[in-house]
Amino acid sequence: MSQPIIFDTDPGVDDAQAIAIALAHPEIELLGMTTTYGNVDIETATHNALLLGELAGQKIPVAQGAAAPLVKPKHPAPAHIHGANGLGNIDLPDVKGSALAISAPQFIVDTVNARPGDVSLVAVGPLGNLAAALQLDPSITEKVKQVIVMGGSIKEGGNVTPVAEANIFNDPHAAARVLSAGWPLTLVGLDATHRCVLAPKDMDAIAAGQGKLGRVLAESYAFYRAFYQQALGIDGCCPHDSCALAYLIKPELFTTAKGHLNVATEGVAEGQTVFAPEGREFMAPRWSQTPVVTACLSADGPAVIDWIVSTLK
Amino acid sequence: MSQPIIFDTDPGVDDAQAIAIALAHPEIELLGMTTTYGNVDIETATHNALLLGELAGQKIPVAQGAAAPLVKPKHPAPAHIHGANGLGNIDLPDVKGSALAISAPQFIVDTVNARPGDVSLVAVGPLGNLAAALQLDPSITEKVKQVIVMGGSIKEGGNVTPVAEANIFNDPHAAARVLSAGWPLTLVGLDATHRCVLAPKDMDAIAAGQGKLGRVLAESYAFYRAFYQQALGIDGCCPHDSCALAYLIKPELFTTAKGHLNVATEGVAEGQTVFAPEGREFMAPRWSQTPVVTACLSADGPAVIDWIVSTLK
Repeated sequence: MSQPIIFDTDPGVDDAQAIAIALAHPEIELLGMTTTYGNVDIETATHNALLLGELAGQKIPVAQGAAAPLVKPKHPAPAHIHGANGLGNIDLPDVKGSALAISAPQFIVDTVNARPGDVSLVAVGPLGNLAAALQLDPSITEKVKQVIVMGGSIKEGGNVTPVAEANIFNDPHAAARVLSAGWPLTLVGLDATHRCVLAPKDMDAIAAGQGKLGRVLAESYAFYRAFYQQALGIDGCCPHDSCALAYLIKPELFTTAKGHLNVATEGVAEGQTVFAPEGREFMAPRWSQTPVVTACLSADGPAVIDWIVSTLK
Repeated sequence: MSQPIIFDTDPGVDDAQAIAIALAHPEIELLGMTTTYGNVDIETATHNALLLGELAGQKIPVAQGAAAPLVKPKHPAPAHIHGANGLGNIDLPDVKGSALAISAPQFIVDTVNARPGDVSLVAVGPLGNLAAALQLDPSITEKVKQVIVMGGSIKEGGNVTPVAEANIFNDPHAAARVLSAGWPLTLVGLDATHRCVLAPKDMDAIAAGQGKLGRVLAESYAFYRAFYQQALGIDGCCPHDSCALAYLIKPELFTTAKGHLNVATEGVAEGQTVFAPEGREFMAPRWSQTPVVTACLSADGPAVIDWIVSTLK
């Protein structure tokens, strides 16, 4: 039984691998990709989404979305992590297709409404497109199958600030809207993704199995890996965005808890996801008033990596 | 070699045990206690500090301090945890002495200046007295031996909010001042104190060893323990404040890191201590601009408990 998804993405090296999974896995039906600024600027995100589909020999609709955060100023894209072209500054072939005429939020609203109860949203970048879709049609909260967000950190600490993960930090106001919208949502944050480290030998297997797309995944990974080695002292990378798809297909590999999420939108904790476990009392109700969601507190890292490699090799 | 300290406190059940340690330990010279609102209101804090010294048969100077936070409104004292009288609502004998004529901040400034390089400040409540002392005489940053603060949480999560520990939450503006003042400071937060659980049998040994003071410690502990059982499902209590003295005498029982602390003063993360490890780069210098301090990331819990019990039995 295949699961229809919209993949909201800012590709990005780890996005590229996740897109390859969405294209390859027999239980995932990729209805379309919606793009956002984040790891790269919006034009590059759209270009890369189109390119990755074409390299896999598939024609997947791509709808362009948010170019900047809802409220705060846009930070420069992290070219030292993903490369200026989002794919490790490697040479890339030309793109043949082009994005849809409709915007990402419109594509989300139309697609969800066309198949009520069927479609899962998997979002692995800043959350502006989902926030905008909720503004266009709040009823989608009742019509999506589920929403899986790669982002945030409960107790793991952050990756762009001491407490904030990049996707949430990039647009905390959009995240506050999306994480408290009252739809069936799971947060796959650093508490889970940092348990998963993709080693160079894993990437060799993936490169060998994915043809032209495999070359792009492997060469861009080499650039991304250099950042991990230098900044974090790890030989390998955390495949953050692929973890969101691992949760879609293999939720049993993740340790989760129910609770309430709030997002810090200002001050030194800006971008932090503040998680109040369901039923735990704090000194005021303030932290427990958003709708209950699911948060990943850990993951079986080796099993997630096995799933990624076996999907792509 | 005895270490002269000023103990800044809001007694409080776990404060009472720490005060007993400060009174009993041969390597600690308790120069005075300074009181603050927090676990109890300020008059109760001063009353209890005087009482606990008298029960131990010692005459320790007590200087009364902050009655409320620097900036935010005061929350009601948590009578469900410490009792309305701060000591589990047990019957207490009368107090004979009275507080000094000078205030807590003045006592801190005078005492530190009288013995430059000698005096350690051990603070286990909201940090208003230390913030006020820094306003009276900023030069004390150069004259204290060290400052040990029980408060905050790096990755452990909070106890009064999902991310904030009570002492810091109670006065985040004072904490922001004190934790970034540029003095030799160690934060002993929940990452360490939650590793330490004092079991009922441990308290029996303490009660037997401490005479009249032992009865008050044991009976108030029973009240505090009921809160832990009901709210957290633990049979035993975390002796938060005693951990600060354990760090003073046995720092080798704690896992620490150097880094920069900032305190969230508003929003859903209010009261959180945001810790940027020294040398770790984040997306902006913002989190790494306060003076370097030491933060406890964990503790050898059983060894800390052994030290507490062997000090008091």
